[in-house]
Amino acid sequence: MTESTQKLEQDFLEYVKKVSAYNEALGLIFWDLRTGAPKKAVEQRSQVIGILSSEVFAMSTSEQMAAFIARLSEAEVFRSLSTSTQKILLECKKDYERNKKIPAAEYKEYVVLQSKAESVWEEAKAKSDWELFKPYLKKIVDFNRRFVTYWGYEGNPYNTLLDMYEPGVTVEVLDQVFGELRKTIVPLVKEIAESDHKPETNFLYNFFSKEDQKAFSLDVLRELGYDFEAGRLDETVHPFAIGLNPGDVRVTTKYDENDFRTAIFGTIHECGHAIYEQNISSDLIGTPLADGTSMGIHESQSLFFESFIGRNFSFWKKQYPLLQEYAETQFKHIELEDFYRAIHESKPSLIRIEADELTYPLHIMVRYEIEKALFNNELEVEQLPEVWNQKYEEYLGIRPDQDANGVLQDVHWAGGSFGYFPSYALGYMYAAQIKNAMLKDLPNFDELLEQGGIQPIKNWLTENIHQYGKMKQPLEILQDTTGEGLNASYLINYLTEKYGKVYQLA
Amino acid sequence: MTESTQKLEQDFLEYVKKVSAYNEALGLIFWDLRTGAPKKAVEQRSQVIGILSSEVFAMSTSEQMAAFIARLSEAEVFRSLSTSTQKILLECKKDYERNKKIPAAEYKEYVVLQSKAESVWEEAKAKSDWELFKPYLKKIVDFNRRFVTYWGYEGNPYNTLLDMYEPGVTVEVLDQVFGELRKTIVPLVKEIAESDHKPETNFLYNFFSKEDQKAFSLDVLRELGYDFEAGRLDETVHPFAIGLNPGDVRVTTKYDENDFRTAIFGTIHECGHAIYEQNISSDLIGTPLADGTSMGIHESQSLFFESFIGRNFSFWKKQYPLLQEYAETQFKHIELEDFYRAIHESKPSLIRIEADELTYPLHIMVRYEIEKALFNNELEVEQLPEVWNQKYEEYLGIRPDQDANGVLQDVHWAGGSFGYFPSYALGYMYAAQIKNAMLKDLPNFDELLEQGGIQPIKNWLTENIHQYGKMKQPLEILQDTTGEGLNASYLINYLTEKYGKVYQLA
Repeated sequence: MTESTQKLEQDFLEYVKKVSAYNEALGLIFWDLRTGAPKKAVEQRSQVIGILSSEVFAMSTSEQMAAFIARLSEAEVFRSLSTSTQKILLECKKDYERNKKIPAAEYKEYVVLQSKAESVWEEAKAKSDWELFKPYLKKIVDFNRRFVTYWGYEGNPYNTLLDMYEPGVTVEVLDQVFGELRKTIVPLVKEIAESDHKPETNFLYNFFSKEDQKAFSLDVLRELGYDFEAGRLDETVHPFAIGLNPGDVRVTTKYDENDFRTAIFGTIHECGHAIYEQNISSDLIGTPLADGTSMGIHESQSLFFESFIGRNFSFWKKQYPLLQEYAETQFKHIELEDFYRAIHESKPSLIRIEADELTYPLHIMVRYEIEKALFNNELEVEQLPEVWNQKYEEYLGIRPDQDANGVLQDVHWAGGSFGYFPSYALGYMYAAQIKNAMLKDLPNFDELLEQGGIQPIKNWLTENIHQYGKMKQPLEILQDTTGEGLNASYLINYLTEKYGKVYQLA
Repeated sequence: MTESTQKLEQDFLEYVKKVSAYNEALGLIFWDLRTGAPKKAVEQRSQVIGILSSEVFAMSTSEQMAAFIARLSEAEVFRSLSTSTQKILLECKKDYERNKKIPAAEYKEYVVLQSKAESVWEEAKAKSDWELFKPYLKKIVDFNRRFVTYWGYEGNPYNTLLDMYEPGVTVEVLDQVFGELRKTIVPLVKEIAESDHKPETNFLYNFFSKEDQKAFSLDVLRELGYDFEAGRLDETVHPFAIGLNPGDVRVTTKYDENDFRTAIFGTIHECGHAIYEQNISSDLIGTPLADGTSMGIHESQSLFFESFIGRNFSFWKKQYPLLQEYAETQFKHIELEDFYRAIHESKPSLIRIEADELTYPLHIMVRYEIEKALFNNELEVEQLPEVWNQKYEEYLGIRPDQDANGVLQDVHWAGGSFGYFPSYALGYMYAAQIKNAMLKDLPNFDELLEQGGIQPIKNWLTENIHQYGKMKQPLEILQDTTGEGLNASYLINYLTEKYGKVYQLA
């Protein structure tokens, strides 16, 4: 490497570090707004967000960035860069090209529309008024259809949108795995609906004080290996985890005193996201690689914790006595087996974020099919409510009573996030596949949970997944970890076996 | 105003708004680090602080800023600007000139030294090792002496340093008012030491749970008119208030379960700072004028609340029964009068931040005289411990047992903050003078406190002081509010009368 290339690489990394610093400040502002910033702070804080975000956008599309990309991409120079600088450069390039291909005036118009659409959506949902939201969604879809033409696509226009959230995953892949999933889950859900062995669940809804739920949540976080020297737990309305840097990854939750599951399973879910980011290699700090590699892999970690640990019978063998201590009257006379069956109650419902783990993938498939059709011009916005309702009937056997509980329920489309939903189901499939691979190294998985010795499980995830951040692409992680590409059968087996037992199906 | 001037003014205000946004983000980071950011966040967060602070420095000394200043300062253009733009421009100009007059390389060296000196100071204080700190302090003083020659001065070199914290206040003014104060306080402190009527204070140190102290603190904040929709109360090690913008001014406190005064009077003090910033005119948001006008005026507001409200007998007439409810066993058999006398116990002590309101100004005078001598080359760093100890003996009648309790106690000098200490005593004098002026409009001041009707008092402060932010200079505020310049006699009267009564002096 020549001296001038070395200098260039350093300057580039300094530049990238500056962008990371702005994003970290923005992350803290976001966290603060959702965990206790005073009401009157918001107006001026939005200005601050606008100013800092514009700077980030300006830096990632600047002439200086263009110069870095051009010079560092020259074949000989590129080869001489460290692997991490190469990956950082590719990230920056992808970002640059995506942002630069949209004419500036059009992008500006779109940003304004987005923010408008989100507030209109909020009102439309509250009033269950589809007509109010329709013109905005139409414009948002039109913009995104046009963006796809600017960006170009391979195979299917929708692939370009998928690529933003799950690089490497295409319509072809999704059609196959979702097809397999559907074939198993739809009949399984029906069977369960007709089963005579439904779990008793009344006791789940007894009063469980917020203070006690919080204390139990903190215990569980510690048990799961969440590092409190690199994070904290706070309360919020829509729970999330946020990584400011690997030394500061915060978890939030909400407490429902009449349904402890909201806080406990929510916290375990966010814990999975957080442990991912806490264990990204510290070498990547200050670069865009210090982040989860994709939405799907991120979700695989939260779902690994929520489903494969948090709904594991052995896990509750250890934790249930503790839970019984915190909520004595509620669980005193409830056997562990009955508790376990109760937290696996499954029934079709209208709202995605309230769905159980068995029916959840069906909610995603509805959205996937609709998005795919929209971006292949096989469907227009006008038809959405009807198509939505038909699909719910077909897959879940229930039909939304109103659009607020149907097509209007999620904010994603108002924000233009098309291609995002599939990551939720992908994460679930990844998690099952990863769990299967882990069993080869840790055949005593259940035993570890029963003994409260989660460390080897956490270490396995760190070694195979967490440490890399964005150094590996999602399908690379999957291949290296499990020795194969995406395979829906692990999730299918998990769901069939588990729910077969809980509902005592033949 | 020409169209191009109008455009220039707008661009300037946009530029200034950007600087404010960065400062707001930095403020939030600061608050977060001191109220619960996880330990492992700190290293990377320091990088973020460094990057954002450098940007702020760069923006305030940029060529663009120079161009704004040059063009907007042209006589005709300046006259056509709005009053607030004029004030903003003057603030930016002052800042620009102060920063630009120091050669860049020298400034960089100084920043590194500062941060080094602060950590050495910490160690030196812990070990009470003056020799360790001495070489650093020597360099810091040398730098600042040189800075004064760069900046220039009028009358006395120390004036230039005073001007950074209290524009308009000079050595001449301070010599006079501190002289008057000294003449009264030194003998008063002696008289009190010899008094036979010392208050009973044992009960102050009974256990008072943190939860109850917090609940009482929240009640008191509400009572004092602190707006919880524009702020929040958190726990910290070194309490402070911080204004991110007038809609978000946060208060912090710490709890000593064996001395409730730490939290209660600390909270009331910070509440005074916070109410000042909550009530700055919203027109000034996003400009450097949305801040307290000076350290001294800021401190006048915190001390107004702490001393003139929080140690007012009528205030406790209303609050004491509530305090008794929160800490029943502690105060059950203590009469209000005895409680009031106890919270006015005064005795000479070595540590400034633990001093009572009567002896506090003496701690400030020691520092003032030393700083003044240092910058007039009448004193060298080597002599500091001895001079410090002599002055404590002279003014307070006690001599530090070790340098940790003497010359090493405060961090200010390690950070190069010379000229800052006098603001504490100035704030106290301002507060007394302001209280006197307020009595002309609100002769029923005590009655208002007794009835819990603080609103008119708060409104008076907002109208006369808070709303202006930095639109008025400190001495302008004082003149407009009280009709005269700085006058020490109001504080002298307050202290003489109050402590005369408490200690039943002749």
